[in-house]
Amino acid sequence: MDKVYAYIETHAERALTLLERLCRQSSVSAEGRGLEEMAELVATVMREYGISAEILPTDGGPPLVYGEIVGRSPHTLLYYNHYDVQPVDPLDEWTSPPFEPTRRDGRLFARGASDNKGDLPVRLEAITALREVRGELPLSIKFVVDGEEESGSPHFPAAVRKYKDRLAADVCLSEGSGLGPDRTPSLVLGVKGMLYVELSAQAAQVDAHSAYAAVVPNPAWRLVGALATLWGRDGRVALEGFYDPVRPLSAQERAVLEAMVDKAEALRQALGLEAFLDDLKGYAWRERLYGAPTCNICGLEAGYTGPGLKTVLPAKTRAKIDFRLVPDQTPQEVLAQLRAHLDRHGFTDIAIKPIAAHERPVRTPVDDPWVQTAVAAAEEFYGRSPAIEINSAGTAPMDVLVDEVTSSLFFAPAGPGYHGSRIHAPDEHIRIPDLADATKMTAMLLARFGEMA
Amino acid sequence: MDKVYAYIETHAERALTLLERLCRQSSVSAEGRGLEEMAELVATVMREYGISAEILPTDGGPPLVYGEIVGRSPHTLLYYNHYDVQPVDPLDEWTSPPFEPTRRDGRLFARGASDNKGDLPVRLEAITALREVRGELPLSIKFVVDGEEESGSPHFPAAVRKYKDRLAADVCLSEGSGLGPDRTPSLVLGVKGMLYVELSAQAAQVDAHSAYAAVVPNPAWRLVGALATLWGRDGRVALEGFYDPVRPLSAQERAVLEAMVDKAEALRQALGLEAFLDDLKGYAWRERLYGAPTCNICGLEAGYTGPGLKTVLPAKTRAKIDFRLVPDQTPQEVLAQLRAHLDRHGFTDIAIKPIAAHERPVRTPVDDPWVQTAVAAAEEFYGRSPAIEINSAGTAPMDVLVDEVTSSLFFAPAGPGYHGSRIHAPDEHIRIPDLADATKMTAMLLARFGEMA
Repeated sequence: MDKVYAYIETHAERALTLLERLCRQSSVSAEGRGLEEMAELVATVMREYGISAEILPTDGGPPLVYGEIVGRSPHTLLYYNHYDVQPVDPLDEWTSPPFEPTRRDGRLFARGASDNKGDLPVRLEAITALREVRGELPLSIKFVVDGEEESGSPHFPAAVRKYKDRLAADVCLSEGSGLGPDRTPSLVLGVKGMLYVELSAQAAQVDAHSAYAAVVPNPAWRLVGALATLWGRDGRVALEGFYDPVRPLSAQERAVLEAMVDKAEALRQALGLEAFLDDLKGYAWRERLYGAPTCNICGLEAGYTGPGLKTVLPAKTRAKIDFRLVPDQTPQEVLAQLRAHLDRHGFTDIAIKPIAAHERPVRTPVDDPWVQTAVAAAEEFYGRSPAIEINSAGTAPMDVLVDEVTSSLFFAPAGPGYHGSRIHAPDEHIRIPDLADATKMTAMLLARFGEMA
Repeated sequence: MDKVYAYIETHAERALTLLERLCRQSSVSAEGRGLEEMAELVATVMREYGISAEILPTDGGPPLVYGEIVGRSPHTLLYYNHYDVQPVDPLDEWTSPPFEPTRRDGRLFARGASDNKGDLPVRLEAITALREVRGELPLSIKFVVDGEEESGSPHFPAAVRKYKDRLAADVCLSEGSGLGPDRTPSLVLGVKGMLYVELSAQAAQVDAHSAYAAVVPNPAWRLVGALATLWGRDGRVALEGFYDPVRPLSAQERAVLEAMVDKAEALRQALGLEAFLDDLKGYAWRERLYGAPTCNICGLEAGYTGPGLKTVLPAKTRAKIDFRLVPDQTPQEVLAQLRAHLDRHGFTDIAIKPIAAHERPVRTPVDDPWVQTAVAAAEEFYGRSPAIEINSAGTAPMDVLVDEVTSSLFFAPAGPGYHGSRIHAPDEHIRIPDLADATKMTAMLLARFGEMA
């Protein structure tokens, strides 16, 4: 690989210039800002790198960008990326303007520098290095670049189903994972699923003076009563049947959890928390965080919440709840369990409104051959065992790709970001040398993928 | 009384002009606006009517205005009023400016026209009419005029305790009660008490991503769990000992409740409500509304409550709760019961913060001789039985007057307002002829009070 690495070093400035070019185009999906222009730019850049690129319209959302290039082996890799970025607020906390990429202290600052525009120079330069140095690409590669990942990808599943023949692949790598402390690479083998709902209750049509509380029903009592039944005294979610589909962790998954560096204490300090739930520590903490489904109150709202007092009996009340799901739970089943549970406890008056997309959990097995190849490649390149997560504790709309494209889907090294990249925050940045390192790692991984039977 | 009534008719324009003068001075206690000026104006007006008036400073609040005039009988009546008014928002819903009193369609529109500046012309003109026509006042009268009733009278109790010797009286009439539909006069024999608290829970110091819900405690679960224990399945407040001090209704109080015109259906329609709690109707509805203490959720707040979704695990959560109390409950006892209840149910982590003043309930007995005289006077003047409430379902800081001044305290006819006066709302007004009627009723009541042994 030395010649490939040397090529990448030689062209490091080209990669950085490309990243600046991509970051200069704003593309905030939450604000519908610059998305068409950004899709065109991504397609143009792909073509400049010798990849056939197309803009694929979606039904109501910004377009996907699709790219493909044929390689030597019979296998095909699908790269998932997104060209949209998070909003930039609070703007006055940026040291330099978010859409004016700025090099400073060996870093490149810009919105999207890490999440997720940084993956494109890495992946395109790795492909080019392999083709230029070796005369061929180790395997065929496709790109699908989403335009509203930061808004929950509401139109992505339908688009994947529509274009599934084009997207067909043997393995899918989602966004490139960044480096942890001590330059530890990471692999994340899946995501939790999600069901997000709003529960609401209403009695009167208008708020009443609280003097009427003796005779007028207060829906807030109904809502807190209903919510209190969801959370069992044993710290588990109290929906009947909720845990039934939960697949026990395999021996390999347990071994992965055993091997993880524990982040509990760092998180505890960052949150200013006295203790975790049930005083969880060590393996038990990790098993719960990565392996257990959750039910969480994201928001509660009723009546008057300003300073001082107002004596009001609210007409309406709402709660926002998210469930994080693990294999083989499905959002549809949990939604049905929630309705049945509320009804069984006498809360037929509590309305349930699902919000946004529902996502099934995804967890690619540890012994998947593509995963094993990626683990070995990361070890070889970084000289240390990668940190593996059996799945993220978070969620992304990966289920449709597993349904329609490939069951081998994970997040692997390398993106150009690191644990301090401040994604979603002001002063998002990458460390400039990480861009070339990620490109080398990516080229090596493509080479190893190309050697697979 | 005919000569007295004739005098009042003759001077009706003087009364109305005085009311306009009082309403022209803004005096919004919530905004600290015009209060000193208003107190001076009230004292000046009292002196113009031959009453010795003083401005009494309070410890930190706007001053009280105190007035006194000696009458024939050995008894003394204390009139409670307030010179502050509600804020005027939303200003653009006023047909004429709130502090520019405007006569229109036989009405006088102005903020405070009914609540509560209208009582002053009524009471002062009644006193003057009796003195001018009969040459003497039937009994001694004192005035205490509060400057922040619309803000919960936080400094009133301490001021009453400070000036209690000056305020000493045999009977206290609070704000004059207005006319109901069909010109039915009303007497309200007391108020419920109140304890207002904020319950809060906190775990982490900062909000966390909801992906951490598997391991990070969510205080919203603690709060809803705690709240759910407060409201019993039987629709009663679940605090241990809560109902123990509740004095059973006397036979006379039950008779008053029996005689009341039922407002349930009108309220049900105004609120757009399907049914009241426990499908309450008739006597049971009235007994609950006027006779039962309550515990009400005024507000609930946690995490994200905007549109759509945000996946957050809130660090803090709060609820605002009001308890309405009936004789002989006290806010201090209920506060202690609440703490003990939460502790007993394992919610030692839920903090309780009392908000603003705590008020004990006040209920003057139906057979109190001053009450009986007022009932007879109202019947005589309006030619119909007054609507009596054993106490308001609402609350006012009357307990300190009962403690320090007189146990005979109630709301009696007549203020110049009526059920449509839109107090606290845009286009507050009185019907102009009601001003003279209220003055006649007041003069007659003073005459009857003067005849009491």
